[in-house]
Amino acid sequence: MLPFQSLISIDKNSIIPVYQQIANRLVSLIREGIIRPGSALPGSREMAELLQLHRKTVVAAYEELNAQDWIESVPRKGVFVAQNLPEVKPRKFTEGVSVSAYAGNTGFSFNRQLIVPAPSSGVQKQRLVINDGFPDLRLAPMEALMREYRSLTKNKTIHAMIERSDPAGVYSLREAMVPYLSSTRGLSIQTNNVMITRGAQMAIYLAARLLIQPGDYVAVGDPNYHLANIVFEEAGAKLVRIPVDEQGMDIDALATACKKKKIRIVYVIPHHHHPTTTTLSADRRMQLLQLVRQYKLAVIEDDYDFSFHYDSAPILPLASTHHDGCVIYIGSVTKVLTPSLRIGFMVAPENFIKQAANLRRLIDLRGDNLMETAIATLIRNGDIGRHTKKSNKVYHQRRDMFCSLLDEHLSGIVNYQKPAGGMAIWARFHRQYPLPAVAARALELGLFMNNGAAYVTGKANYNALRVGFASLNEKEMQEVVGVLARAVKK
Amino acid sequence: MLPFQSLISIDKNSIIPVYQQIANRLVSLIREGIIRPGSALPGSREMAELLQLHRKTVVAAYEELNAQDWIESVPRKGVFVAQNLPEVKPRKFTEGVSVSAYAGNTGFSFNRQLIVPAPSSGVQKQRLVINDGFPDLRLAPMEALMREYRSLTKNKTIHAMIERSDPAGVYSLREAMVPYLSSTRGLSIQTNNVMITRGAQMAIYLAARLLIQPGDYVAVGDPNYHLANIVFEEAGAKLVRIPVDEQGMDIDALATACKKKKIRIVYVIPHHHHPTTTTLSADRRMQLLQLVRQYKLAVIEDDYDFSFHYDSAPILPLASTHHDGCVIYIGSVTKVLTPSLRIGFMVAPENFIKQAANLRRLIDLRGDNLMETAIATLIRNGDIGRHTKKSNKVYHQRRDMFCSLLDEHLSGIVNYQKPAGGMAIWARFHRQYPLPAVAARALELGLFMNNGAAYVTGKANYNALRVGFASLNEKEMQEVVGVLARAVKK
Repeated sequence: MLPFQSLISIDKNSIIPVYQQIANRLVSLIREGIIRPGSALPGSREMAELLQLHRKTVVAAYEELNAQDWIESVPRKGVFVAQNLPEVKPRKFTEGVSVSAYAGNTGFSFNRQLIVPAPSSGVQKQRLVINDGFPDLRLAPMEALMREYRSLTKNKTIHAMIERSDPAGVYSLREAMVPYLSSTRGLSIQTNNVMITRGAQMAIYLAARLLIQPGDYVAVGDPNYHLANIVFEEAGAKLVRIPVDEQGMDIDALATACKKKKIRIVYVIPHHHHPTTTTLSADRRMQLLQLVRQYKLAVIEDDYDFSFHYDSAPILPLASTHHDGCVIYIGSVTKVLTPSLRIGFMVAPENFIKQAANLRRLIDLRGDNLMETAIATLIRNGDIGRHTKKSNKVYHQRRDMFCSLLDEHLSGIVNYQKPAGGMAIWARFHRQYPLPAVAARALELGLFMNNGAAYVTGKANYNALRVGFASLNEKEMQEVVGVLARAVKK
Repeated sequence: MLPFQSLISIDKNSIIPVYQQIANRLVSLIREGIIRPGSALPGSREMAELLQLHRKTVVAAYEELNAQDWIESVPRKGVFVAQNLPEVKPRKFTEGVSVSAYAGNTGFSFNRQLIVPAPSSGVQKQRLVINDGFPDLRLAPMEALMREYRSLTKNKTIHAMIERSDPAGVYSLREAMVPYLSSTRGLSIQTNNVMITRGAQMAIYLAARLLIQPGDYVAVGDPNYHLANIVFEEAGAKLVRIPVDEQGMDIDALATACKKKKIRIVYVIPHHHHPTTTTLSADRRMQLLQLVRQYKLAVIEDDYDFSFHYDSAPILPLASTHHDGCVIYIGSVTKVLTPSLRIGFMVAPENFIKQAANLRRLIDLRGDNLMETAIATLIRNGDIGRHTKKSNKVYHQRRDMFCSLLDEHLSGIVNYQKPAGGMAIWARFHRQYPLPAVAARALELGLFMNNGAAYVTGKANYNALRVGFASLNEKEMQEVVGVLARAVKK
């Protein structure tokens, strides 16, 4: 007989009942070929003695196995492993279940080796972090949002709403976006022109998958938001890199490129371009619109950062003009709240929104409809508007203060252009201070920052990174700049 | 001079300041070619009179336009539209901004016409809904979850955590999943083998994109979860449909198919197969594992519905056996809470998880890390375990009751096999009652149900739909069955 007392180990502290642990372990032994089809198992009394358990527990385990068709009880003969199970060549006992099937790399081939460096997992915990440009959760109306969310979970009629949900987003939020986008951005749209997504990123992904055919030329800034570039390449695009200067994307260069190559799609970030933070100038916006009409270009206008503009009011998007439905407009609601919420939107002609919703359904059936409904309420009752206004003031001050700190402590080391808006500075470090070394030293000093690798999109190495100032209060800004000053002095 | 008083309309109730409305409208007029580059604008005094506004408001608007480089103030000469703007051929006045650029279909071509029928938008509101198999939000520990979530939003050190977040999910939740999956499912894994996704659907999408090369044969059940089929076909797969009977997928048929075609990937739903609710029998599971080893198949094991099994304990997944890392195991945490939360997971070898995280980042930077952290707490403190146990009992009773109601009121009309677990019945309607007609009639009677089209995956029309019973209380079940009985009697 097999040494069941050592093969079956019981964890009395587990949330799994003991009888079920026995059953599960016996199934494993059968599947591993250690117990063979048709072989006899000890009777429940004998097994109970071996395992030092109450007999009832073993009886329950056998009943369980019987119900799952792994064993058969033959009256007056005993308990047998089912005959119809296939034979398995047993492995060595010592391997047991302790050798995880997942321990090594997978045995099969798979077809992507993406080049995105995944951020390291959250085991290291620095208190200070330089982010890409995030809002300050501490300013956000989270209390009001939580109140809404919580009351929805108690709403007895919410069921039907959840169950009818649309991959284009909760209808009430799409509806609330229409006057909101009209008043803030001058968009003339209807509910069916709006789709709610998981942040702007999902909107970029959906638009790319719908627009790009393998081999298509897509014009992007140089540099550009690196994850957009990868999304486009993933979808089969060939990137045509258009220089970005202090006025934003060089539209003359785009015009030249349009003459040379059959460019079908342009991706632009007119406000606070990512990563460089420059804003597309008025004349270039108009030139771009002319090119769009002339070449029937599809435009992905990524306006992730619309709400925060300091030196003037936000500039109206391309989407607010006459463009015959050629502009897919992308934005983010939760850039004004907290990056953890991830609610963005896409504005497009209805037939495009429909297909985008179909595609989104394949990726992620639907959004968090309770959260979307709560946000709709906060837009309608003006909470989001008031919060945006308030944080716009705070971020304005923070930008000015952060720039002063940089000038004071890192002059000659960090070069930047004061951004007209947004949540980050594009900080170009002097060649003498290579970012990988600075980042490594900063980490020793308790500050996590990326090493600039993510911003190297074309041939150029800018030795630069985005330094998000919006989420840092006065004390934290001083700390961050202090650490940077020490990190470069080493 | 242009009739500015009729071209510029002011909305005094808007959240946008009046000066900004003027500026925005003037920008539109310039962009539309109605006001030409270099042309003179009325002085601020004159414009104020035309618009019947205070002069300061117009001055502010002009300053705004100046800051945005749309106009130039020439001392002692007046205010001019910038010279360097490109000329635009003007449209007719009457078109104005009231004609939305998004009103029609888009002018450019795009390359997907997905065949998924998007559910109709949520404007119709029926109180009664037949869903696919959803949990009952009213039973879920939402109070405890809200408490956790809310306290996180107030946590002053949460910032760094949010900002370091990993597309594979919050580390604490991945960590909490290891003992949870080990005790409930017998998985022997480490934190790096787990990734948190937006529901099981995103895990299916990521796995498909990583595994499938265009032209690959993928074996699926016939019928099968229709959105999985579409995901696979989207990724370029050719589907090989394997019949599903009362014992789950016919593994002999799969063996035959493996001999004929170079099948690389198998998608299985061993517990409560979708849509048919059958559970893969013990012997077929073992046969399947042998095929996996023999042909080095990659398996996508979709165990979305693991936690709810009534006639026996849940059956251990294929992933808990020796499979050399060939099984990508997919499940859902929030199937036990509410469908609106959408937190699922994928278990795979570390190199696969890494690539899946990279791909997820392109689609949706990261999850809701506050919610993920809150769920980690509920798993660790046992709330999820206790809730699962409690709702398992409730759903068991509901299954029995719902089946009795069907037998009582729809015998001979609806044919079904009592499922061993899960949240839905696979209800096959007699040919005499075509589902589109039944659904239309039910809608008139105040019940929304799908018309069965989504389940037609192969050649067969089952005239069937999944009827989720788990989310319905006693009264609602009676109402639903009552409406169905009336709908077929018409």
